[in-house]
Amino acid sequence: MNDTLIEDGRVALGLWVKLPLVESIEIAAASRYDFVVIDLEHSTINTERAAQQIAMARALRILPLVRLPLAARSDVGRLLDAGAAGIVFPHIDSVAEAVEAVRLCRFPPMGERGVGPTSRAGGWGLMDLGEYLAPGAGQPYVIAQIETAHAVSVAAEIGNTEGVDGLLIGRTDLTVSMGRQAGPDGVDRLVATYEAAAGSGIALGTAVGNSEGVDLRLYAKGYRFVVVSNDVSLLALAATTSASSARSRLHRD
Amino acid sequence: MNDTLIEDGRVALGLWVKLPLVESIEIAAASRYDFVVIDLEHSTINTERAAQQIAMARALRILPLVRLPLAARSDVGRLLDAGAAGIVFPHIDSVAEAVEAVRLCRFPPMGERGVGPTSRAGGWGLMDLGEYLAPGAGQPYVIAQIETAHAVSVAAEIGNTEGVDGLLIGRTDLTVSMGRQAGPDGVDRLVATYEAAAGSGIALGTAVGNSEGVDLRLYAKGYRFVVVSNDVSLLALAATTSASSARSRLHRD
Amino acid sequence: MNDTLIEDGRVALGLWVKLPLVESIEIAAASRYDFVVIDLEHSTINTERAAQQIAMARALRILPLVRLPLAARSDVGRLLDAGAAGIVFPHIDSVAEAVEAVRLCRFPPMGERGVGPTSRAGGWGLMDLGEYLAPGAGQPYVIAQIETAHAVSVAAEIGNTEGVDGLLIGRTDLTVSMGRQAGPDGVDRLVATYEAAAGSGIALGTAVGNSEGVDLRLYAKGYRFVVVSNDVSLLALAATTSASSARSRLHRD
Amino acid sequence: MNDTLIEDGRVALGLWVKLPLVESIEIAAASRYDFVVIDLEHSTINTERAAQQIAMARALRILPLVRLPLAARSDVGRLLDAGAAGIVFPHIDSVAEAVEAVRLCRFPPMGERGVGPTSRAGGWGLMDLGEYLAPGAGQPYVIAQIETAHAVSVAAEIGNTEGVDGLLIGRTDLTVSMGRQAGPDGVDRLVATYEAAAGSGIALGTAVGNSEGVDLRLYAKGYRFVVVSNDVSLLALAATTSASSARSRLHRD
Amino acid sequence: MNDTLIEDGRVALGLWVKLPLVESIEIAAASRYDFVVIDLEHSTINTERAAQQIAMARALRILPLVRLPLAARSDVGRLLDAGAAGIVFPHIDSVAEAVEAVRLCRFPPMGERGVGPTSRAGGWGLMDLGEYLAPGAGQPYVIAQIETAHAVSVAAEIGNTEGVDGLLIGRTDLTVSMGRQAGPDGVDRLVATYEAAAGSGIALGTAVGNSEGVDLRLYAKGYRFVVVSNDVSLLALAATTSASSARSRLHRD
Amino acid sequence: MNDTLIEDGRVALGLWVKLPLVESIEIAAASRYDFVVIDLEHSTINTERAAQQIAMARALRILPLVRLPLAARSDVGRLLDAGAAGIVFPHIDSVAEAVEAVRLCRFPPMGERGVGPTSRAGGWGLMDLGEYLAPGAGQPYVIAQIETAHAVSVAAEIGNTEGVDGLLIGRTDLTVSMGRQAGPDGVDRLVATYEAAAGSGIALGTAVGNSEGVDLRLYAKGYRFVVVSNDVSLLALAATTSASSARSRLHRD
Ligand SMILES: [Mg+2]
Ligand SMILES: [Mg+2]
Ligand SMILES: [Mg+2]
Ligand SMILES: [Mg+2]
Ligand SMILES: [Mg+2]
Ligand SMILES: [Mg+2]
Repeated sequence: MNDTLIEDGRVALGLWVKLPLVESIEIAAASRYDFVVIDLEHSTINTERAAQQIAMARALRILPLVRLPLAARSDVGRLLDAGAAGIVFPHIDSVAEAVEAVRLCRFPPMGERGVGPTSRAGGWGLMDLGEYLAPGAGQPYVIAQIETAHAVSVAAEIGNTEGVDGLLIGRTDLTVSMGRQAGPDGVDRLVATYEAAAGSGIALGTAVGNSEGVDLRLYAKGYRFVVVSNDVSLLALAATTSASSARSRLHRD
Repeated sequence: MNDTLIEDGRVALGLWVKLPLVESIEIAAASRYDFVVIDLEHSTINTERAAQQIAMARALRILPLVRLPLAARSDVGRLLDAGAAGIVFPHIDSVAEAVEAVRLCRFPPMGERGVGPTSRAGGWGLMDLGEYLAPGAGQPYVIAQIETAHAVSVAAEIGNTEGVDGLLIGRTDLTVSMGRQAGPDGVDRLVATYEAAAGSGIALGTAVGNSEGVDLRLYAKGYRFVVVSNDVSLLALAATTSASSARSRLHRD
Repeated sequence: MNDTLIEDGRVALGLWVKLPLVESIEIAAASRYDFVVIDLEHSTINTERAAQQIAMARALRILPLVRLPLAARSDVGRLLDAGAAGIVFPHIDSVAEAVEAVRLCRFPPMGERGVGPTSRAGGWGLMDLGEYLAPGAGQPYVIAQIETAHAVSVAAEIGNTEGVDGLLIGRTDLTVSMGRQAGPDGVDRLVATYEAAAGSGIALGTAVGNSEGVDLRLYAKGYRFVVVSNDVSLLALAATTSASSARSRLHRD
Repeated sequence: MNDTLIEDGRVALGLWVKLPLVESIEIAAASRYDFVVIDLEHSTINTERAAQQIAMARALRILPLVRLPLAARSDVGRLLDAGAAGIVFPHIDSVAEAVEAVRLCRFPPMGERGVGPTSRAGGWGLMDLGEYLAPGAGQPYVIAQIETAHAVSVAAEIGNTEGVDGLLIGRTDLTVSMGRQAGPDGVDRLVATYEAAAGSGIALGTAVGNSEGVDLRLYAKGYRFVVVSNDVSLLALAATTSASSARSRLHRD
Repeated sequence: MNDTLIEDGRVALGLWVKLPLVESIEIAAASRYDFVVIDLEHSTINTERAAQQIAMARALRILPLVRLPLAARSDVGRLLDAGAAGIVFPHIDSVAEAVEAVRLCRFPPMGERGVGPTSRAGGWGLMDLGEYLAPGAGQPYVIAQIETAHAVSVAAEIGNTEGVDGLLIGRTDLTVSMGRQAGPDGVDRLVATYEAAAGSGIALGTAVGNSEGVDLRLYAKGYRFVVVSNDVSLLALAATTSASSARSRLHRD
Repeated sequence: MNDTLIEDGRVALGLWVKLPLVESIEIAAASRYDFVVIDLEHSTINTERAAQQIAMARALRILPLVRLPLAARSDVGRLLDAGAAGIVFPHIDSVAEAVEAVRLCRFPPMGERGVGPTSRAGGWGLMDLGEYLAPGAGQPYVIAQIETAHAVSVAAEIGNTEGVDGLLIGRTDLTVSMGRQAGPDGVDRLVATYEAAAGSGIALGTAVGNSEGVDLRLYAKGYRFVVVSNDVSLLALAATTSASSARSRLHRD
């Protein structure tokens, strides 16, 4: 395994985690995903559970990111204390919001993250404080999610905000936020604009519903990470498919 | 059962849920309440538990509302994703706050609710996206709670805000927020003002401590839903009553 | 409050606890029950939850008993370690079973309870071992439940088994186990036989569905404790009653 | 849906549930399985969780069975109280064990199941006692699992034990218990013997790893229910497949 | 025990609680701490768990404070409803923030805390409303945490804000927020400024990593409460020390 | 780390785990214990929690043993399925009990452990069945606990039972089970008899209350593993010590 999300030479592969289960982390690690994104925007996983999932991911050496809205700002520090390797902030629409996201994730003087060394991230207080506070490789990733046409138009500025490590786009969010009448072409144009941000060295990410949405040209376009499906949809689709296959085999005439 | 909260011809009957139990939902359904309000303002029920309660309510076809303050805005989408049929927003004191409440509950372009189709509300990702996004009967109810004298004075405007489906008043909150010296008469005058809002077609709701607070004139006054007591107070009162009755029967002289 | 279940001059009043809630304990204490019986025979409360309930009962100084079948013998010691004040053993049909029940609850040489002083009961290991092991007032109550006609016929022997502190009868269990065709008279005769056991100084207990089943003659008949209703039935009945009352007040014509 | 497990004209389709999630039940219901078997033999699901899963299954009208070893006999009544529609008993090797299984599931006079009407199964005490106790359609299914060569040899007797509703065989268990050197032929012979039991009107069941193990001749052979895969294996396989597919699409050369 | 945090003649002794355990509360009470601070800023304890811890602390008569950031404002009322004796607000940097903190903790007309009498704090609705609302001894403590050089410079004003009961300083936070280059001397000067606030009658508090940081001159300097270490660091240090001691005794040469 | 409990050249160091926390496992791993024993005899940790602790221990490569009485036999397979590296069976008093313990832990033909390859231990069903079933290094340790004078007298026979990997003695248990009047000398004699079993190549283990009970002569006497203290006692002692130290420093005169 690898402790880094973003690196030259590969597109890191991730899984959204939406079920309140440590087993989802264990299965992601066994399936050799590079990272998970524990979703606290679009699931009801609570903070204690997320902390258990983060702990398991660290133990199994799969990178645990957490998705948290800016509006849940008081949870950012809690989950970084719990050992999250980074935060995915949804709906970052401006540089000001990106700056705020960074501020929540960095210790003073770069930011305003509270100091909590008695947590998992600080070795329960046994780690040297300097090590806990040290910037660098271990510092949390800050990923800004681009979900509106306006956000796409300032994606490069958001991506170049000091402390932002990468961007994440999702076609579905974008499609809906544009008003669906804009059509696939409109979304294609937005995606192209988004991808242009890679020109200034910004690491791009994307999320797709299944592996067919993945493509070997992603790397060349500047993508360095991709989230493919999520635990509960994989389970639901597999269960439905198995049931209908079994049923048709039982009742074939 | 009935999937609607507000309809002509009846006053829907609800129960506050304050205990971290799915049994409270099962008992409410068995007791033939029309809806429950899972209270995340004045209980400590967490998001995972609320999601289980919502799931159970949907399964048993009793309407699950959730009470959430605007300050907990990041949880609104999570609980709608989990299948809540609507949100009761406490302390809505102005049209601006009502607009914000609606914005959190409606998808673009009407609002800014994030798109989370891989949740229970979206059939874990197996439902057609259009169906998940469709406005109409299935869209979440937005109920604005009126708790101050000032809020009463603008109750009609709040109730007529586009996207607001109904209002909810409670005498206790109002009494305390007025300063209790205002007395019952002051509260009665406020309630009358509140009820006047029904004139412009706004659905009214109220909450009372027990069934004696319910009255067959409610419908004529414009009330379409009433919340009567809550699980933990019902349990506490029943236990106390049973104990003192038993004790007096044991020790009668 | 009082740390004893059985004492001259009163009939102690208890509540079955069937909900996985510490609130049930708090409410029982506030309602001034003398004891609770946390039911691990006819609910699905698990061991961790029961331990929290026991801890809360001890903190609030209401006596926590636990009901556990002999077949769950490996949990007896765990819940005594957790601080249970006694065990109610259902379906004790013979002296041999009563002896086994005692054996599980007493340390050597009287019994074979394992030594677990690092538990709540042992002050997490900080209490003096002698104090933890000391027989006497603090030792767990052993209550044998009499639920069949045969068990009634040997109730006096069961109650006089060394280490058995009291008996508990329930009409419902007895009625069903007799075959219901035996009728109320048959059950009355069994109850009379049961009550005769009080003649040899055995403390009797009973369980009734509600306070109307309680009666000031109980003490004279030898009863020293009575369990009246349970948390979930109190809640369900209160909710149903409130709903139907409210509904009739809303729709009275 | 259908409240019966075993009926003429179909092979009922089930799913093992091994994850501590109500979502597994919801997904099974949405996928239109006829029943689930909540596995308390080969998972660590605890009693509170199993009860939540049972409650959800009942609410969604999918039949909840629970697998419990005879050695966990004290949990049988608890989970029937919680609303389980039946128990699958693993490793029933003799008629005596089958009789014991039935005894745990039937009220007196047919068996010795304890009376617990204040549970979900008894409507929290609000249901009429006679209804709660009534034998007939609603009474729990007793399924005996056949897992050794010896058990196969007495399968017909086990299946004809009064109160046993069906049998369940699994090739894997059988293969391992025979000693794997017996080979596929040995197992085939055992399966044939097992299927011969259908001749005396016994309902047969089987469990297979995936839908390819299902076959339209099952009905004719006497099978009336089949369990196909389980939640955690479906999730693990889907996650692994998705990851390796995505990875190959990212790195194809 | 004593229901007050701040009183003449003593420095109250507290423990941070960071583990999701009621046992931490029980152990703190047994160890005769005067108060606990359940930390919802730097742990992942969720609201249901915090409520259980608060309930246990009240039952054992040890004072339960909760640390909650202003950004988690919607949880303040929930945990006061659950029975918290006060809130520690981290990062109070201005009088305006102090005023906001008070506003969240006081009922109208002094503040805007919502009325939730059906909670533990209101006796589940059985307590007289006037008693629930009464200001005075029972009203929640508001403690403002001073964590930046700027906050120190206005500490006296913050401490004298109406409704603020005390201040809390921590050297670590201060050191990091100053930029660590300021050195111990810089921090010492800040601490001296902080202590000067005691001159206007403000109750001071501090937090230290272990008992060696405690000193009998604290009282004279104006300190009335001190938090010494936390559950998880105590456990981690004890486990590490025990392991290394045991290992050295096993392998001494 | 090392996957083996028993090996030449060292005395493995372990910690009892009694708190329902994954943090206890993380701290044990960080403190470099070789193994943990998750105690399901003298704590109330439930099966789901134990499974999470086992999973964390495996992830962090610290060996997870579980203590389970023979009377809890139906949980042995569940926790081995969950990934336990071995079972410590308390109160093994005879060879027959030792044989039974082995039988529960070994697959056919050596034993009667049920086949559960869809569990963690079987890679959720993705592992090759042969690998799951393979005897050898990975097979669970069976440790028999010697707790009575009689058991000591047959300790060598128990230790030489095929499939038993080691013995565990504890002075406290022994002292109490003898009747405490036997005195330290009596216990010393029993310990000497126990240690004599090492002569026939049996791996010995012991449990002590703290590191002072550990001694470099253990290895020579045949001990290969020692359990030193437990999580909750370490926490309780550290909290008490810290409080009394702080208090004396605050109030020194
Ligand atoms: Mg989005
Ligand atoms: Mg209110
Ligand atoms: Mg009974
Ligand atoms: Mg099997
Ligand atoms: Mg701080
Ligand atoms: Mg022992």
